[in-house]
Amino acid sequence: MKIIKNPKRTDWASILERPTFTTESLDKVVNEVFDAVQNEGDSALKKYTQQFDKVTIDTIKVSSDEILTSKDLVSEVLKQAIQLAKNNIEIFHNSQKTAKKIITTSPGVDCWQESRGIEKVGIYIPGGSAPLFSTVLMLAVPAKIAKCKEVILCTPPDKNGNIHPAILYAANLCGVTQIFKVGGIQAIGALTFGTETIPNVYKIFGPGNQYVTAAKQVALSKGIAIDMPAGPSELLVLADESAIASFVASDLLSQAEHGADSQVICVSKSEEFLFGVLEEIKEQLVELPRRDLAEKAIENSKFIVLEKDADILDLINEYAPEHFIVAVENEHFYLNGIVNAGSVFIGNYTPESAGDYASGTNHTLPTNGFAKSYSGVNLDAFVKKITFQRITKEGIQNIGNSIELMAAEEGLDAHKNAVTLRLESLK
Amino acid sequence: MKIIKNPKRTDWASILERPTFTTESLDKVVNEVFDAVQNEGDSALKKYTQQFDKVTIDTIKVSSDEILTSKDLVSEVLKQAIQLAKNNIEIFHNSQKTAKKIITTSPGVDCWQESRGIEKVGIYIPGGSAPLFSTVLMLAVPAKIAKCKEVILCTPPDKNGNIHPAILYAANLCGVTQIFKVGGIQAIGALTFGTETIPNVYKIFGPGNQYVTAAKQVALSKGIAIDMPAGPSELLVLADESAIASFVASDLLSQAEHGADSQVICVSKSEEFLFGVLEEIKEQLVELPRRDLAEKAIENSKFIVLEKDADILDLINEYAPEHFIVAVENEHFYLNGIVNAGSVFIGNYTPESAGDYASGTNHTLPTNGFAKSYSGVNLDAFVKKITFQRITKEGIQNIGNSIELMAAEEGLDAHKNAVTLRLESLK
Repeated sequence: MKIIKNPKRTDWASILERPTFTTESLDKVVNEVFDAVQNEGDSALKKYTQQFDKVTIDTIKVSSDEILTSKDLVSEVLKQAIQLAKNNIEIFHNSQKTAKKIITTSPGVDCWQESRGIEKVGIYIPGGSAPLFSTVLMLAVPAKIAKCKEVILCTPPDKNGNIHPAILYAANLCGVTQIFKVGGIQAIGALTFGTETIPNVYKIFGPGNQYVTAAKQVALSKGIAIDMPAGPSELLVLADESAIASFVASDLLSQAEHGADSQVICVSKSEEFLFGVLEEIKEQLVELPRRDLAEKAIENSKFIVLEKDADILDLINEYAPEHFIVAVENEHFYLNGIVNAGSVFIGNYTPESAGDYASGTNHTLPTNGFAKSYSGVNLDAFVKKITFQRITKEGIQNIGNSIELMAAEEGLDAHKNAVTLRLESLK
Repeated sequence: MKIIKNPKRTDWASILERPTFTTESLDKVVNEVFDAVQNEGDSALKKYTQQFDKVTIDTIKVSSDEILTSKDLVSEVLKQAIQLAKNNIEIFHNSQKTAKKIITTSPGVDCWQESRGIEKVGIYIPGGSAPLFSTVLMLAVPAKIAKCKEVILCTPPDKNGNIHPAILYAANLCGVTQIFKVGGIQAIGALTFGTETIPNVYKIFGPGNQYVTAAKQVALSKGIAIDMPAGPSELLVLADESAIASFVASDLLSQAEHGADSQVICVSKSEEFLFGVLEEIKEQLVELPRRDLAEKAIENSKFIVLEKDADILDLINEYAPEHFIVAVENEHFYLNGIVNAGSVFIGNYTPESAGDYASGTNHTLPTNGFAKSYSGVNLDAFVKKITFQRITKEGIQNIGNSIELMAAEEGLDAHKNAVTLRLESLK
């Protein structure tokens, strides 16, 4: 890792380049598992759980007993923490509801939109070392606010066939309707096609490894909606001398500990400040249990010195970071000018981990430059907006002739005729 | 075509079945063209335009002279009609802007969303018999309201290398920034990779034939966002004896004239009413220039009699029509209960063609059952929503401990540490 000083614009693309991320090579195994799940249902789920997760599951669905027991296995302090996070996520996502507004576009022509929750949604929660109950909150809370009827959660069982109690506790607290002990490609296949036990859904949310990511892409090609395409997690910190080097270092490391492929970028006008951050990183790294992962990500990180605000802003918008921390005095220039980012964290006391857990914003965000075209998960992701229109006799008399002219020009005479008949009836 | 009386629920799926629609068989030709466009740029565009559209194009970009000339080639009455439609689309999509609302989730923790227009969007307008300038309005107007910086339009040239003047006129009127004479797979490839002349974009909108649809799916797999997956157009009309048979017939025919694979469904409690509609269809068909297409679609249409409102509503929601006309006295039962539909047309004087052209709602809508998970195109489709959060010292003291507990339980100690450092600095 070294500091890059005043790189030329023509070099930005290569400096900001992300690791190539493609799942096409996994399509063969995904299609094989999908075919089996579609044709053999539950028995395929059990077979692949044996094969990939090395555990035999007799019952795919988590029982109400298991959910009840999970309550006793989660400490009171953690329950309170989960409750606080849930409240904040609820408040913020509730505020995203849109009221029905009837708009009269021409006299007698009323148009409006109404939101409807997607009736059946699937939430995938990965297994592995970290039990991501925070992701349960981030996806189940807005699903409930959106009034999704069925909220189906799939997550792989551990070696003993169990699911981490905090995941069960959070899922039950947030109104998940059914929980299944299935992970990986087979889980995404089950949510795509449905099996005897697991219902199919209309949209699949949630993170996962490269196999899950590839499976979600195949589900998408089969007409199932997904939250967004995935890639390694990213953080870009912009800091000046009003920032605190130890805080910046801790934020960069919290991103770095996600994995060796995590993208970590720090931009400043001050090289000296960046030196200070690097020193802090060295000190803090020593204490970290996930030090190996974090160290690798830090090695690949970029520390960039640029002099002008306008250049810095352009560089950030070109990169389109998933997470963007703004710790500079002239923050308004950046808050107004940022176009491409997933979530923005402002000031010295707003660490990325606040948004990961408890500020109320969603942590399911666009990576890999997708912030140029995708929003993070929010309430909109769980609803469809239907348009309505009601036209009176006066209304069709006002706009009917225009419709006739346009339809005729496009050669669509039946479209024209649907208006002509109505206009003639009013003569 | 025959009337289906009181079908059993178990038969609904087969009655409502859509034609299988898959573009995978076209992937080979799409990948071939994409490779050529990526590697050879403009010269590949010219080669395929020669091959597929049978015309030699010297200049890919439409000149300002061509745009100027188009103004003289569009009649004044059509210009006025286009202006009326544009106004209504503008009014309705403008009303979809969301104000920034700062939400305090915990004391000292402020969260909000801000919309940013997608910087570069592509609009595809098909060629063929009908010059779809109405689709230019539907896509370019919201792109402009969203403040998309670059709005790139691609459409195939006719045999003489020209583009229909109404398309050029509408594109210029609505603020399209560049227009290119390229269609088909090669146009989608150019918008995906960029060439010497055509810039790449972040999201591609617009209808097209099966090749364009397949190309958009491949673009999606390469990280370019698209408006939505496509399928044949659909209309479901619900009518009782308060409806007017000739109007209903004209609406069904306006759907049917789109193509032989158009989906046309009419549901009523009254078999007699449906007989009346069928009679009207026969009479109106005679007059239609696109009679052959419409006749085929009508042959495949379904006329369904059901007795109970609750059953009718379930059937409609199961089908999830792109367009849904509600022409019944107890309309409120259906307007409240509809969950899956693209756009809803209420009452006897609200033909589908009003929404296709001039009511103000968007006509780019989810087909093929995708209304279960996708919205139609609206202002949201042209923006990303970025979340922001600002936490004060008080704020991190309020939520910091919860973050520490959750991060520790997930095994993410650097996430915890980013909060601990801040909390300790405040002691």
